[in-house]
Amino acid sequence: MKNNNIKLNGFNSSYEEGELVVFGAPMDNTTSFKPGTRFAANAVRIDSIGFETYSPYINRDLTEFKLHDGGDVYIPIGNTDKSLESIYNYSKKILDDNKIPVMIGGEHLTTYGIFKSVFEKYPEVNIIHFDAHTDLRDRFFGENFSHATVIRRCHDLIGDNKIFQFGIRSGEKDEFDWSLKHTYMEKFDIKTLENIVEKLKDEKVYITIDLDILDPSCFPGTGTPEPGGISFKELMRGVHLLKNLNIVGGDIVELSPHYDNSGISNAVAFKILREFILTIL
Amino acid sequence: MKNNNIKLNGFNSSYEEGELVVFGAPMDNTTSFKPGTRFAANAVRIDSIGFETYSPYINRDLTEFKLHDGGDVYIPIGNTDKSLESIYNYSKKILDDNKIPVMIGGEHLTTYGIFKSVFEKYPEVNIIHFDAHTDLRDRFFGENFSHATVIRRCHDLIGDNKIFQFGIRSGEKDEFDWSLKHTYMEKFDIKTLENIVEKLKDEKVYITIDLDILDPSCFPGTGTPEPGGISFKELMRGVHLLKNLNIVGGDIVELSPHYDNSGISNAVAFKILREFILTIL
Amino acid sequence: MKNNNIKLNGFNSSYEEGELVVFGAPMDNTTSFKPGTRFAANAVRIDSIGFETYSPYINRDLTEFKLHDGGDVYIPIGNTDKSLESIYNYSKKILDDNKIPVMIGGEHLTTYGIFKSVFEKYPEVNIIHFDAHTDLRDRFFGENFSHATVIRRCHDLIGDNKIFQFGIRSGEKDEFDWSLKHTYMEKFDIKTLENIVEKLKDEKVYITIDLDILDPSCFPGTGTPEPGGISFKELMRGVHLLKNLNIVGGDIVELSPHYDNSGISNAVAFKILREFILTIL
Amino acid sequence: MKNNNIKLNGFNSSYEEGELVVFGAPMDNTTSFKPGTRFAANAVRIDSIGFETYSPYINRDLTEFKLHDGGDVYIPIGNTDKSLESIYNYSKKILDDNKIPVMIGGEHLTTYGIFKSVFEKYPEVNIIHFDAHTDLRDRFFGENFSHATVIRRCHDLIGDNKIFQFGIRSGEKDEFDWSLKHTYMEKFDIKTLENIVEKLKDEKVYITIDLDILDPSCFPGTGTPEPGGISFKELMRGVHLLKNLNIVGGDIVELSPHYDNSGISNAVAFKILREFILTIL
Amino acid sequence: MKNNNIKLNGFNSSYEEGELVVFGAPMDNTTSFKPGTRFAANAVRIDSIGFETYSPYINRDLTEFKLHDGGDVYIPIGNTDKSLESIYNYSKKILDDNKIPVMIGGEHLTTYGIFKSVFEKYPEVNIIHFDAHTDLRDRFFGENFSHATVIRRCHDLIGDNKIFQFGIRSGEKDEFDWSLKHTYMEKFDIKTLENIVEKLKDEKVYITIDLDILDPSCFPGTGTPEPGGISFKELMRGVHLLKNLNIVGGDIVELSPHYDNSGISNAVAFKILREFILTIL
Amino acid sequence: MKNNNIKLNGFNSSYEEGELVVFGAPMDNTTSFKPGTRFAANAVRIDSIGFETYSPYINRDLTEFKLHDGGDVYIPIGNTDKSLESIYNYSKKILDDNKIPVMIGGEHLTTYGIFKSVFEKYPEVNIIHFDAHTDLRDRFFGENFSHATVIRRCHDLIGDNKIFQFGIRSGEKDEFDWSLKHTYMEKFDIKTLENIVEKLKDEKVYITIDLDILDPSCFPGTGTPEPGGISFKELMRGVHLLKNLNIVGGDIVELSPHYDNSGISNAVAFKILREFILTIL
Repeated sequence: MKNNNIKLNGFNSSYEEGELVVFGAPMDNTTSFKPGTRFAANAVRIDSIGFETYSPYINRDLTEFKLHDGGDVYIPIGNTDKSLESIYNYSKKILDDNKIPVMIGGEHLTTYGIFKSVFEKYPEVNIIHFDAHTDLRDRFFGENFSHATVIRRCHDLIGDNKIFQFGIRSGEKDEFDWSLKHTYMEKFDIKTLENIVEKLKDEKVYITIDLDILDPSCFPGTGTPEPGGISFKELMRGVHLLKNLNIVGGDIVELSPHYDNSGISNAVAFKILREFILTIL
Repeated sequence: MKNNNIKLNGFNSSYEEGELVVFGAPMDNTTSFKPGTRFAANAVRIDSIGFETYSPYINRDLTEFKLHDGGDVYIPIGNTDKSLESIYNYSKKILDDNKIPVMIGGEHLTTYGIFKSVFEKYPEVNIIHFDAHTDLRDRFFGENFSHATVIRRCHDLIGDNKIFQFGIRSGEKDEFDWSLKHTYMEKFDIKTLENIVEKLKDEKVYITIDLDILDPSCFPGTGTPEPGGISFKELMRGVHLLKNLNIVGGDIVELSPHYDNSGISNAVAFKILREFILTIL
Repeated sequence: MKNNNIKLNGFNSSYEEGELVVFGAPMDNTTSFKPGTRFAANAVRIDSIGFETYSPYINRDLTEFKLHDGGDVYIPIGNTDKSLESIYNYSKKILDDNKIPVMIGGEHLTTYGIFKSVFEKYPEVNIIHFDAHTDLRDRFFGENFSHATVIRRCHDLIGDNKIFQFGIRSGEKDEFDWSLKHTYMEKFDIKTLENIVEKLKDEKVYITIDLDILDPSCFPGTGTPEPGGISFKELMRGVHLLKNLNIVGGDIVELSPHYDNSGISNAVAFKILREFILTIL
Repeated sequence: MKNNNIKLNGFNSSYEEGELVVFGAPMDNTTSFKPGTRFAANAVRIDSIGFETYSPYINRDLTEFKLHDGGDVYIPIGNTDKSLESIYNYSKKILDDNKIPVMIGGEHLTTYGIFKSVFEKYPEVNIIHFDAHTDLRDRFFGENFSHATVIRRCHDLIGDNKIFQFGIRSGEKDEFDWSLKHTYMEKFDIKTLENIVEKLKDEKVYITIDLDILDPSCFPGTGTPEPGGISFKELMRGVHLLKNLNIVGGDIVELSPHYDNSGISNAVAFKILREFILTIL
Repeated sequence: MKNNNIKLNGFNSSYEEGELVVFGAPMDNTTSFKPGTRFAANAVRIDSIGFETYSPYINRDLTEFKLHDGGDVYIPIGNTDKSLESIYNYSKKILDDNKIPVMIGGEHLTTYGIFKSVFEKYPEVNIIHFDAHTDLRDRFFGENFSHATVIRRCHDLIGDNKIFQFGIRSGEKDEFDWSLKHTYMEKFDIKTLENIVEKLKDEKVYITIDLDILDPSCFPGTGTPEPGGISFKELMRGVHLLKNLNIVGGDIVELSPHYDNSGISNAVAFKILREFILTIL
Repeated sequence: MKNNNIKLNGFNSSYEEGELVVFGAPMDNTTSFKPGTRFAANAVRIDSIGFETYSPYINRDLTEFKLHDGGDVYIPIGNTDKSLESIYNYSKKILDDNKIPVMIGGEHLTTYGIFKSVFEKYPEVNIIHFDAHTDLRDRFFGENFSHATVIRRCHDLIGDNKIFQFGIRSGEKDEFDWSLKHTYMEKFDIKTLENIVEKLKDEKVYITIDLDILDPSCFPGTGTPEPGGISFKELMRGVHLLKNLNIVGGDIVELSPHYDNSGISNAVAFKILREFILTIL
C-alpha cells in the first residue's frame, strides 16, 4: 500500500537508481510569505499529473529513463548566501554521485548555486542561456548577487567566449555593450542556435532556461513579462536542437505560478522540462 | 413587446424555420456543481452579443441565414449514458427534420451522442477531427466511454480510414501507434488539411473541433491546456478550407469558461462557430 | 542532507511513529483534469508553510505531537467504487495500527470511505456533521453514492439517532422532513453543539467537517458556496468544544482551491485542521 | 422534447400563468461592451441551477408558486432615456396584467423605470431602500438621471416621508443633511426596520435592494464595494421582516459579476431573490 | 529630498523642457466607478517601473530625450462633450507650445479630442489607424460620438483618402463597404503599411493605435477582445516602420487593465509607447 | 489648466500648507519586480477616487483639513537599511516641520523607519499595535530587521510597558511568552482597547495598523491571510476610539493589492485611512 507523494509525473526512481535528478530551488529572496517563484517547483509537480510522460515530438517517454525527483532544497528565507550554498551542496552531491542535476527555480539567481558546482566539476563548461533579459549587470541596487547579475557572476567563473545568450530583448545599454566583448548574444530570437550547437558539439554545456524568453502570451506566469518573446514552439524546437551536445546540467527558472490563474504557465514549464530531459538523455 | 431571451447573436429563426440548429450539451460528467465545460454554451451565448454577426473574412453574415439556437439539451448530472442519449435524441430530431445539427459541448465525449445520430443517417460519413489529444484510448480508468476514448468509440461505428485527425500533440505511445493503422493523423499541425479536403470532396463529413487544438495562449479557457498548439488564425483558415465539403454536422467542445477570467476563450469559441457556420452553409 | 518533500507544516513523524495520520483523498469523481477538490490536500500542504504550528487559542503546538502526513491515497479517476475502496483500505490500515485517521477531501463522498473503516472498528460510533447541506438524499441523479447522499449512506451503517448535523441551510424539503425522524439537526447554526457534546461525552465520535458550513465570505474556495453560513470564529469555537469527546477519526472536505485566487480558503482549511488535531490529541 | 432555455431555477410558469414576473434590466449606461451590471441577470440565472428552490428558513419552495422569468428587457446601449422607458413599459404591462414585477438590475438607475410604473398604479406607494449609498444627489456630473440620483428622482414622484432608507454609509454631507428633512434614514444598519415595517403595515410598499448594502466580504461583485456593510444573515433577516407588508414590486440591483471570480456574489443575489419572493407571496 | 510621484518610467522633464508630452485621458464614458479603460494610464505608469527605458531594437533610450508626463486630463464622468473638450484643450496647449502630444486612452473616442486639435494646427494631416474594428459607423445606438464612430468623425474633419486603416477584422458589412470609397483599409494585417509609409513620406501624419489590433493572446486586457489579431512583434515592427514619417501626434487606446490579472497588457502598452516615442523623435 | 496627478482623494494641500502628510513606503524587501505590498500606496490612491471624502460616522470630511499626499519615498530595491533610512529621513522632515506623518506601507518593517523618527522627537511615545501577528521575534531566518521582528525592534527603542498589542492570533509560543513580561497584549480581539485608551489619555501615542488584523474575508489582499480576525466594523470602531489620544504619527501596512482582484482590500485601506485621519485631527 503506497500513497502518492507529490512528485513530477514520470519520475519513478529512487535517488540511488536515478541517472538524472530534478530538484526545486524555492528561492525568491524575500522575507515575506507568498509572492513568487518560490512556489514554482510544487506547482509544476502538481499540474504534471494532467500531462503525458510521452513526447510525440521525439518519440520518447519519461518512464523509459531512471529519473528521480529530489524535492525542494532547503532555503533559509531572505538569506541569499546560505540559499545559494544549499543549492550548491545538493547539486554537488548529485554530480559527485555521477548523475545529472536539473533544477526548477526559483528566481534566476538560483542558477549560480547549481552552476558553481557544475563548473567545479567541469571547469571547461559552456553556458547556453535562454532569456528575455541580459542578466549582465555588475551590480543591481548595490548588490553583487541578484537575478539581474547572475550571468555576469557566471562569467566571473568561466570568462569570455563561453556564454551564448539567446532571445535577449531587455536590459540597459551598458549590458548590451558589455556583451559585445564578453559573450555571444543573439538578440530577440534563437535563429543562430543551430550554428552554436554545431560549434559546441564536442564540448560540455550547461543550459539555463529563463522561461521569460517566451512571449507572455504563452507564459504569463512570471514576475516581469516582456512582450516580444519567442513562441512555445520555437523554444521547444530550440530544446530539441540540443540533442547532440554533451549536457552536464541545466535549469528552468522564473515561473511564478500565482500570476497565471489559468495554469498554462505550469503546463509550459512541465512540457519544456519533459522535452529537455528526453532530449539530453 | 418582446424581451431578449439569451441566445446566440444572429440566431433569429424558430426551430421550424431553421436550416441549421445549434444546441448546447452542458455535460462534464461530474456530480458537483460548477467546474467546467458545462457552462460553455451559455458563456458563448452571453458574450456573443459583443461580437459582429458579419464575417469580413468571407463576406457573409449570420443574419443572412435561417439559424436557430435550440438552447441546451437536458443533462442528468453524472449519468453518462442518459446524457449521451439526450444529446442523441435531440440531434436525431434535427436530422429527421432535415436540418444540420451543430453542438457546443461540453466535454469531448458529448461528440459521441451527436455523431451517433449523424452516423445512423449517413453511415458512410467521415470525421475530420481537430484536437490536441488523440482521444484514441480504448479504456480510460476502466471506462469505455470517456473524453479520452471518444474518437475510438466513433471508430467503432465507422471503422478504418474514415477518421482524419489534425493538430494532435498529446497522448500515450500506444495511441499514436494505433492511429498508424486505423486513422489518418497529422501531428502538431493542420498543413495537410487541404489535401484531405480535396480527397473528401465528394463525401459526407462530420467536423469535431476540440478547441484545445489551439495554443493555450489564444485559448486558456480549457481543462487541459496543451502548449504547442496552432494559432487562432491557423484554425480559422482551416475552417474556411472546409467550404467545399458536404458537411452534415459538427461540434466545438472543451471550452471551460471559468478558467479564463479575461473572456478571450469565449470570443474564440463564438468566432470559430460563426466562421464554421458561414462556411458550411 | 535532506530535502523538503511537500508535507503539512508540523507533521514531522514517520508513519510508524505517528499517533495520528493525515492523508489526502483527491477524489472529485470527474473524468477530466483540473476542476476541483482533487487539488485540496496539496494546496493545504503548500500553503501550510506560511502559518504557525502553534495555537495561541489552546496553547498547544503541532510539533509537540507525533503526526504523520501520509500523502494522498491513490484515486482511479472517475471510478467511484474503487476510489472509495482505496480510501477505506488506507484508513483501515491506520486504524489497525492503532492510529487516528484524519482525511482531507476531496468531495464529501470521500467521507464514506474513511467512515466505513471507522464504523467497522467502532460499530457504536456517532457522527457529528458540520455542513451547509443535508447530504441526506437517497439518490441523486439516479446514483446511490454521491456527495449529496453521503450522510444518508452513513446512516445506512449506523442507523437512527447517531448522526448530529449542524449548520445546515440547504437541501430539498424531503431531506429536512426525513431528518426529523432519523437525525439530530440544528439548522443554520451550531449553538446546540455544546449540549450534544455533553450528551456524547462517554461515546465514540467521528467528525466530518464540510467546510462549506462556513459563510462564503470567509471560505470562497468551494464548489457550491452557500451564503448565510457561520463565521470562521464560530467554527473554530465549535472545534474547540470537541475536546471532551472520544474522537476516533475525522475529515475536512470540499475545499476547491482554484476558485479562490487569494488563497484564504487554504488558510482556513489548515487552521481548522490544526485546531482540530490539537483539540483531539 | 424540450430543451432548457436559460431561466431562473424554479421559475416554471408562462407569462400568462405567472403571478409574479422577474425580469432583467441589463443597463449600465455605457457605450462599450463588457463592464458591469449589464451581465447580472444572466449570471444569476446560470448560477441559480446550483442552488435549491426550497427555503429552510421559511419552509417554502419557489416551485409552489406561479413564477415567470421574463428574460431581459431591451436596452439601447448608452441611451438612458430609452432604456428607462423600456423598463417602464415592460413593468407597466406586468402591472396592467395584475402581476407583481420584480427586477434584477443593472445599475441602480434602473429602479426609476420600474418604480415609475408602480407609482402610476399606486400613487400612495412607499419605498423601502436598502443601500450603502444615499443616492440622493440632485445632479451627478451635471446629469439629473444617474445611479447617484435615483432615490432623489423617486422622491420627485412621491415626496416627503415616503422613503425609508437603511444601511446607508456613504455619500456627501449635503445628501445626509437633505435626508434629515425628506426621508427616513437609518445609517449603517437595519435595526429599526422592524419598527418601520410595523408602521407601514397597512400601506403599499416598493422594495429596492442595492446589494452593496452588504459588506464586500460577502458581496465582492459590485462596482463600488463599501466596507462596513451588513452581513448576509442580517439582510436575509431584513427580507423576512417584510412579510406583513403589502409589497407591490421590487428590485435587486448593482450585482457586477465580473468582479467576483469565485461566484459568491451571484449566489447571494439568487438567495436574496428567492427569500424575497417567498416572503412576499 | 524628492519623493517619487507616479509617472512613466523615463519621463524626467518638466512641461516646459519637454519636447513631447504624454498625457492620460481616463474617459470611458460611464457613470459608474471602476470598469474600464479609465484606469489605463495609471496602470501603465505604475507597471512602467518594471521595464527598461532602453530599446535594444533601435538602440535608443527614453532618457536621451526630453519627455514630460502630463498626468491625466480632467474628465467629468459621463459627460462626453466636456470630456472631449478637456482632452482637446490640453492637447491644443501642447501643440501651441510646439511640443508633440501623445495620449494614453481611455476608450477610442478620446482620439477625437486630441485629433481635433492636431487637425486645427495641421489641416492637411493624415491618419494611420491600427485597430481590430472599423470604427466607421455613422451612428451607434443613436449617438454620433461613440467609440464605434470615432474614425468616421475624424473623416468628417479631413475627408476622403486621408485615413489609412490596418488590421481591421470586425465591423458591420456597411462599414466595410463605406471604407471602399472613403478610406484605405488593409483587412486583418499590416503588410501594406510599408507601402503606405513610403507614399506618405513627405506628409504630416497622426497615429492612432487601438491596442485591440493585437491578438487577445498577447493583449487580453481590453473590453472587446477580437481573436485573429496581429502579434506583438508585428505591431512593434509596424511602429518601427513609422520612422520616416513626419508624425505630429498620436495615441494608444483601449487598454482595460482590470481584465488582465497577469499584467501582460500593461507591459505591452508601455513597450509600444516606448518604441513609438523612440521611433518618432 | 491643471491635470490630475494621482493622489489620495481629498488631499488637496501642498506640503507647506499641510498639517498632516501621508506618504507611501513601497518596500517589500525583494529583488524582483511585482510581488507585493510595494504597490499598496498607489493602489489606494487610484481607488480612492471611487470613495467619498466625507465620513457619515463622525461627520467630518477630509476636505475640511489641510492634508498633503507626499507621494512615495525612494526605496532602493532589496536594500533594507537604506530603505528604512529613506523612510526615516522623510518622516523626520515632516516632524521637523511640525506636521504629523502617516505612512502607507509596504511591509510591516517599514514601521521601524517612521517610528524611529517619531521616537527621537517624542522619546516617551507609546505604541498601539493592531495586528494578526506578534511581530516579536528577535531574529527571523537570522535577520534582526524583518517584518516578523519589527515590534521587537521598536521595543528595543522604548522598552517595557509602552507597547499595546491587539488582535494578535499568530506567532510562536516564545513570542507570546515574551510578551507576558514586556508588552500588553490582547489576543484575538480589541475589546480592551477602550481601557487602554483611557489609560493613555494624557500620553503621546503612535499607531501602527497591520491590516491583516482584519479577517481575510474582509481583507483578502495581504500576503499572509490569517483567518479568525476582527471585522471591518470592529476595526473602524477601534479607530474611532482613538479620538482622545495625543497621536503623533501612524501607519497602515501590509496591503498587497495583487492578491485581491475585486479591489475590496484597497477600499478597506482607504476607508481606515480616512477614518483614522478624521479621528486624530
